[in-house]
Amino acid sequence: MILRIDRLQVELPPPSDPDPDGAAAVQELMGGRFGELSTLMNYTFQSFNFRGRQGARPFYDLVANIAAEEYGHIELVATTINTMLTGASESPNGDGSLGDALSRAKSARNTQQFIAGGQAALPQDSMGRPWNGDYVFSSGDLVEDLTHNFFLETGARNNKLKVYEMTAHPAARALTGYLLCRGGVHQVAYARALEKLTGADLTKLFPTPRIPTEKIPECQPHIERGEHKRLYRFSPDDYTEIVAVFNGPHPETGEDLEVADQPPEGALPNDLPPQTAVFAPDYAPEEITEIAAKLRSAAGLPKQPTGQVANEGETLVDKVKDKLG
Amino acid sequence: MILRIDRLQVELPPPSDPDPDGAAAVQELMGGRFGELSTLMNYTFQSFNFRGRQGARPFYDLVANIAAEEYGHIELVATTINTMLTGASESPNGDGSLGDALSRAKSARNTQQFIAGGQAALPQDSMGRPWNGDYVFSSGDLVEDLTHNFFLETGARNNKLKVYEMTAHPAARALTGYLLCRGGVHQVAYARALEKLTGADLTKLFPTPRIPTEKIPECQPHIERGEHKRLYRFSPDDYTEIVAVFNGPHPETGEDLEVADQPPEGALPNDLPPQTAVFAPDYAPEEITEIAAKLRSAAGLPKQPTGQVANEGETLVDKVKDKLG
Amino acid sequence: MILRIDRLQVELPPPSDPDPDGAAAVQELMGGRFGELSTLMNYTFQSFNFRGRQGARPFYDLVANIAAEEYGHIELVATTINTMLTGASESPNGDGSLGDALSRAKSARNTQQFIAGGQAALPQDSMGRPWNGDYVFSSGDLVEDLTHNFFLETGARNNKLKVYEMTAHPAARALTGYLLCRGGVHQVAYARALEKLTGADLTKLFPTPRIPTEKIPECQPHIERGEHKRLYRFSPDDYTEIVAVFNGPHPETGEDLEVADQPPEGALPNDLPPQTAVFAPDYAPEEITEIAAKLRSAAGLPKQPTGQVANEGETLVDKVKDKLG
Amino acid sequence: MILRIDRLQVELPPPSDPDPDGAAAVQELMGGRFGELSTLMNYTFQSFNFRGRQGARPFYDLVANIAAEEYGHIELVATTINTMLTGASESPNGDGSLGDALSRAKSARNTQQFIAGGQAALPQDSMGRPWNGDYVFSSGDLVEDLTHNFFLETGARNNKLKVYEMTAHPAARALTGYLLCRGGVHQVAYARALEKLTGADLTKLFPTPRIPTEKIPECQPHIERGEHKRLYRFSPDDYTEIVAVFNGPHPETGEDLEVADQPPEGALPNDLPPQTAVFAPDYAPEEITEIAAKLRSAAGLPKQPTGQVANEGETLVDKVKDKLG
Amino acid sequence: MILRIDRLQVELPPPSDPDPDGAAAVQELMGGRFGELSTLMNYTFQSFNFRGRQGARPFYDLVANIAAEEYGHIELVATTINTMLTGASESPNGDGSLGDALSRAKSARNTQQFIAGGQAALPQDSMGRPWNGDYVFSSGDLVEDLTHNFFLETGARNNKLKVYEMTAHPAARALTGYLLCRGGVHQVAYARALEKLTGADLTKLFPTPRIPTEKIPECQPHIERGEHKRLYRFSPDDYTEIVAVFNGPHPETGEDLEVADQPPEGALPNDLPPQTAVFAPDYAPEEITEIAAKLRSAAGLPKQPTGQVANEGETLVDKVKDKLG
Amino acid sequence: MILRIDRLQVELPPPSDPDPDGAAAVQELMGGRFGELSTLMNYTFQSFNFRGRQGARPFYDLVANIAAEEYGHIELVATTINTMLTGASESPNGDGSLGDALSRAKSARNTQQFIAGGQAALPQDSMGRPWNGDYVFSSGDLVEDLTHNFFLETGARNNKLKVYEMTAHPAARALTGYLLCRGGVHQVAYARALEKLTGADLTKLFPTPRIPTEKIPECQPHIERGEHKRLYRFSPDDYTEIVAVFNGPHPETGEDLEVADQPPEGALPNDLPPQTAVFAPDYAPEEITEIAAKLRSAAGLPKQPTGQVANEGETLVDKVKDKLG
Repeated sequence: MILRIDRLQVELPPPSDPDPDGAAAVQELMGGRFGELSTLMNYTFQSFNFRGRQGARPFYDLVANIAAEEYGHIELVATTINTMLTGASESPNGDGSLGDALSRAKSARNTQQFIAGGQAALPQDSMGRPWNGDYVFSSGDLVEDLTHNFFLETGARNNKLKVYEMTAHPAARALTGYLLCRGGVHQVAYARALEKLTGADLTKLFPTPRIPTEKIPECQPHIERGEHKRLYRFSPDDYTEIVAVFNGPHPETGEDLEVADQPPEGALPNDLPPQTAVFAPDYAPEEITEIAAKLRSAAGLPKQPTGQVANEGETLVDKVKDKLG
Repeated sequence: MILRIDRLQVELPPPSDPDPDGAAAVQELMGGRFGELSTLMNYTFQSFNFRGRQGARPFYDLVANIAAEEYGHIELVATTINTMLTGASESPNGDGSLGDALSRAKSARNTQQFIAGGQAALPQDSMGRPWNGDYVFSSGDLVEDLTHNFFLETGARNNKLKVYEMTAHPAARALTGYLLCRGGVHQVAYARALEKLTGADLTKLFPTPRIPTEKIPECQPHIERGEHKRLYRFSPDDYTEIVAVFNGPHPETGEDLEVADQPPEGALPNDLPPQTAVFAPDYAPEEITEIAAKLRSAAGLPKQPTGQVANEGETLVDKVKDKLG
Repeated sequence: MILRIDRLQVELPPPSDPDPDGAAAVQELMGGRFGELSTLMNYTFQSFNFRGRQGARPFYDLVANIAAEEYGHIELVATTINTMLTGASESPNGDGSLGDALSRAKSARNTQQFIAGGQAALPQDSMGRPWNGDYVFSSGDLVEDLTHNFFLETGARNNKLKVYEMTAHPAARALTGYLLCRGGVHQVAYARALEKLTGADLTKLFPTPRIPTEKIPECQPHIERGEHKRLYRFSPDDYTEIVAVFNGPHPETGEDLEVADQPPEGALPNDLPPQTAVFAPDYAPEEITEIAAKLRSAAGLPKQPTGQVANEGETLVDKVKDKLG
Repeated sequence: MILRIDRLQVELPPPSDPDPDGAAAVQELMGGRFGELSTLMNYTFQSFNFRGRQGARPFYDLVANIAAEEYGHIELVATTINTMLTGASESPNGDGSLGDALSRAKSARNTQQFIAGGQAALPQDSMGRPWNGDYVFSSGDLVEDLTHNFFLETGARNNKLKVYEMTAHPAARALTGYLLCRGGVHQVAYARALEKLTGADLTKLFPTPRIPTEKIPECQPHIERGEHKRLYRFSPDDYTEIVAVFNGPHPETGEDLEVADQPPEGALPNDLPPQTAVFAPDYAPEEITEIAAKLRSAAGLPKQPTGQVANEGETLVDKVKDKLG
Repeated sequence: MILRIDRLQVELPPPSDPDPDGAAAVQELMGGRFGELSTLMNYTFQSFNFRGRQGARPFYDLVANIAAEEYGHIELVATTINTMLTGASESPNGDGSLGDALSRAKSARNTQQFIAGGQAALPQDSMGRPWNGDYVFSSGDLVEDLTHNFFLETGARNNKLKVYEMTAHPAARALTGYLLCRGGVHQVAYARALEKLTGADLTKLFPTPRIPTEKIPECQPHIERGEHKRLYRFSPDDYTEIVAVFNGPHPETGEDLEVADQPPEGALPNDLPPQTAVFAPDYAPEEITEIAAKLRSAAGLPKQPTGQVANEGETLVDKVKDKLG
Repeated sequence: MILRIDRLQVELPPPSDPDPDGAAAVQELMGGRFGELSTLMNYTFQSFNFRGRQGARPFYDLVANIAAEEYGHIELVATTINTMLTGASESPNGDGSLGDALSRAKSARNTQQFIAGGQAALPQDSMGRPWNGDYVFSSGDLVEDLTHNFFLETGARNNKLKVYEMTAHPAARALTGYLLCRGGVHQVAYARALEKLTGADLTKLFPTPRIPTEKIPECQPHIERGEHKRLYRFSPDDYTEIVAVFNGPHPETGEDLEVADQPPEGALPNDLPPQTAVFAPDYAPEEITEIAAKLRSAAGLPKQPTGQVANEGETLVDKVKDKLG
């Protein structure tokens, strides 16, 4: 089972100019064959289906723990898409009519982000096709699963670079800069696991694809913090045997790999503003805010929401506070 | 992001007689339109995409927190399937040849559990079709999303009952007995959220479908423990505002709804035995065990695996301990 | 637009021994590439999309009118499947518990007829895959569309014969005996339309596939009534120009083709009995019956349902009449 | 079975400026999860699969009758798309060569409307993905099916508004203005059915989503005619018991709900002009017209087509009349 | 089994201005329902599954031999797409950074050609949906299969014309000009086979669709060479009985059909240049060239690559020759 | 382009007892994610899309040449399935009626082999789901593509073993015994290519999965002939540079790898007998034989079919020879 923490693994910028076609491209990192839903679900199913896990505990722990990190990755991708879509609808009439609020979205690459979603992420790829379970490989054979995982991370890094090249939106760049580093760590982890298990040396395959992360500005802060050589342990007490596999020199830099015994501190998410033209969260969101305030009060909770967001002071609840007062 | 805990939300029995067709049916609860992947991903995406969440914090917390519980549900379904498939292959020759180990699986309803998987769960439904992202509804409109979620839980409970009726395998019955209770709690939660938000009273729809859980033996222990009226909070510090929504009388029993401020204690999983005919985790799993022991030792970890399982004393690591000694 | 008539185009027998695997096979005639959903939707879309229809009125009328007949065909296929599945669940305990009511369904070929449906038809094929819009061909080019339709009917007749050979269930045989005749009429209609339009003589292709309907007992009553050479007009006032195309000799028998200026008289459907194990229409259907009686009374309708069914005197409403009295 | 009437349920405008991207968006109302194919097929299958229908006659009649209306809705959506696409291809050479007639369509969002179709509607959604049978919910449990139907209509109305906001094309606006009203009626019908059956009061959920139809100009003529509170009976003699459910006050306006004992008068469709670049209905449509005229004459039909269209006097048959004379 | 020849069936022009949206449209000819993957796989499966082939040898040979030609067609379509995409990415920085190389691709219709592929063809249609096996019809009934094949070629020719009209890119025009001719030959072949087998005369259906190839400039050189009336035999020694079916007059021109006893001479392909922004074939392709040169040398092969391409003197190997020298 | 040879790459046994469920399982080797359609299409697309191929000629030749071998593999899989299905239908009446010929097929795992096919192979997997283009990976990055291909062959070998274990039918065993050897060669080829390109030594991964081919009887004849260490060149004149990559010691046996400069001699296929119940090749196949004989004669071909099959003397043409005489 899991515990959920209401923070992002890394800071993402607030909304700026909307970029609907860029947001459509980022969907590949969510629901594509090599998207984060695929890494999440591959490792999740492999861990669920792991037989003889006590005997192979370091390997089980590795797969199960990386699965946990991937949940945070789908969260980052969704947040990025939502950030890029914020502001992409507006009523030109300014008179309360719904007018032509989505007229620019008509020619956007992914209309379902607006029609089926609330200007928001969907479990789809960059062509609008849904993620599906055929993308999961869980053969039960540990060597095969690790070979697959190494390949999967390789493909995933390729896709992240392509999306990096496609859109310069600050949120997309922040996302891909971070994920290129983290995906690299997972590649190393699976290659090292294969090496420990079979003796096969995959060192010379790195980097693969040959992405020059040292030339990508958005990767630098993460490299400086050592994010490229560190595996986080995402559990209060479990998966401690990852240290038995994730060690030795980094195949590219030669630095020692390291295990952090807790998740990254991460960052608070921005509370993305309502988009009334798509009824997210409703046509009149301030009414929901009022109802919520009453419910909170009735439950003996503080007047202010107990959850935290990065942009406190700019959110809807702040705007309606006077009225509530 | 999440933290992962290596325990199940509820105890499941160890393998007994294999039941491949039953395991194929249980797949509906994994990858069907109303399976646990659907509940997990619907609430996960709705929480990621929630705009104006500070203003609507009690509702955001509710959806985000139930999403966290659902991860534990896909784990339970996978474990059940794996338990039911354990022992379904065997070499009739007993001479080390691979023989006709899967001859009985040839006519099983889901051959891919054996061919693509290691006698294990797949992200598919009971007809072997993969789960896909079209099953996710995340409109951004809070009232609509809650209406959907109420309907989704209704359909999910229906499917659980059908699977209950299909197979009497102890693992399947333990699973469905538990999930019928937990699904009921989620139905109540979403109905109550709708009521708080709009005033619409859905009380008289319960139970829906009209499943007489009081007559289902496998539901009784959970009802006695109050599992039918309790919402767990699956987070170290977040989602505390669920109490603002999940309160008042239970629509069927009139008892007060209650919030548990931590996850359930749950149970250790069984370490399911290797199935060498399908190479899970390999053709010669004891070699992996030996390698793992050496890695553990090199990393300064204890000789015994640090992770715990329910069936300690019967696992592969115990069997090869002498040899390792 | 359409008007709906609560009768079947042909009489189907009441439930007898259930035949779940046969019902799974009949699904091919519903949701397969050559199933009735395909014929319905192909002709429907072609008629909606018909440009310059005044100029080509006889051809437009032909396609639009056959589309209308096909709606009756999906109704027949659904009714057949439902008939074959009636009685396939039962509680072995007889004590009101839900017991193992679906234990035999566990190994049935289509478990979703029980899990997703109420022992009933689904828009799927014989492998449980959903019908989809890719099966529709609507090019706008009249000659091409007619060529397609001739081919589609050819494939459809092939599939009907295969299903005939697969199951001897009385409902399946009644269905396929009838549809083989009607599909033959549509083949002739499209071949004749092509001939009228281009001069190409397809006469010698008949019968195709070379199904000896004269040797199939279940076809005989329909052949005797002339169902193999008659096109019905399914409209109060429209589509009268079908006579301009559907005329001349039948390619196999030489008899004159004829147009009936109204739909067939058809037959009343059986009211298939509730299946409480799958909650169809509910766990306690007699309660619904009581509620319905009260609503009917409040609306000034007669005590007896105003709709008619073939098995009046055996239905649920009869069973609960005393109680209601 | 059905009878088909060659009229639209509401008047739609003739072609004006083509709007291919708008037409791609309107596809969501055809083949999306919440499109009219979904409402049609959900209610159709639910009615086919209805067990114990005599006992539950008012509910059976309601579902079966609304299914019939939905057929008219897919017709309206198709006609709208076809209207919006009319004129979107043209030969720039004017010399009979096929030239670059589709050069502008190359960058249109849905190229298959031109390649697979004749500048016409397809059973696809706004992303070009085909409608499929997984969108049908037909559990057999009446309460569940009604809950689903209420949710389905809610999602459908949401999508209609989004398309309204996306394109201001007159045909799209006429369509969505009408369907927003009719979808609202179906929402009320299913909510009322649930109330009659269980007592649950859903009144306060309305309107959901909170679409202010009173502010949408294209809804006004329909509201003025009472289209928002009237259920039509689409059958010569059947489904008369809908009055037992569809009664009482409208949840939003308090007006009495009413049942019209016949279908709406509707309107004649426009005969959309041939598009020779895409061979719809052929490269040289006037030849088809000549052939049709001869066939009509040979069959003893009048010289003029017997079918009626809204734009008589502007159609192809008028243009070639002299030549035929 | 097959032997592969490293030549194209017809000459295609070298890259010129890139045309991504055009390349997306050409995908329909690859992976659409009527694309070349469909013709290839339909005839391949029909030939594999042909029962009683000795008795029906001329027909078996015909289907098996046309299957072989189709492999060359998917090669032509892929080459066309790759040609049209060449140059569509570029680094605006010119400083070795990956910059915004794909910024223009962000709004291209098929982003996966860049993200999943190396600016290259995918087994998808013009909407980015993957080709799938449902497009294969292989009933085993010879007359039905031939009827299908005639229809398939008809639809394929339609789609080729549409793509012709969509893009004037030289590669696309060269492709469609050629395939319109070759598809016409296959139509004639299947129509003649049907005639030989049943006597049905389909002559008057030609041309269908009524494409005026005589007015299409890009068809002329092929018509002049007689490509419209010639069937090639694609085998060293087999399929010689095609002459028993493919004979008699061409339905349109009356010319004698002819069989060429060998494949066409065809043309060398262009060696399309690397696209480093998408890592095709790698970020630093000249390193691969150097490694290859060494491997070639170690294997005793000549210094120059032994394979031939059309643009010798302009390829990467030429560029790095000095360095290698 | 290709030339086709009417021989199998290896001998397969004639039909014996039919094994429909076994044939359904073998479908995984055809249309599964790791089936032969996947290996064929992956390498085919990678070769089509290969940029800078002159510079990387040895690698291009390797991929292009293995693609050619895979076409022979889909042929072997299809032939195996068809062999296993031969005899699975029969008319119990023996009186010319179509009777219940497919009654046993009703409960077979893949009913579409009978309904859609002529008791024959389909492009589907073992669950009856169609192969689709999402299974193709063609990134353009050579190192990535080779990594993928190594993984793909690993998964493919796993699946072959599973099918080996599932059915002991002689055809299935002959198939899997051969393909396990050939797949192993391709694994070695791609691993060696990666090594040559990057220096990474994958030797110790072999065998993967750890299939003990030395213990599998059906592999022995092929191992004895050296099929496990030999790469065939499938081209009259091209792809000669494969020798630059495929050399050095075999990772498992240390033997020298070798390249055969021509395809294997292979074997004649059996002419599988007609199955009249499914109209393959027609209801009365002897009529086709008579027509074919006349066509052959008219074309000046010999009386006997010119194509060869393994079971000459037992085929339909032999049976009807007297009559023809």
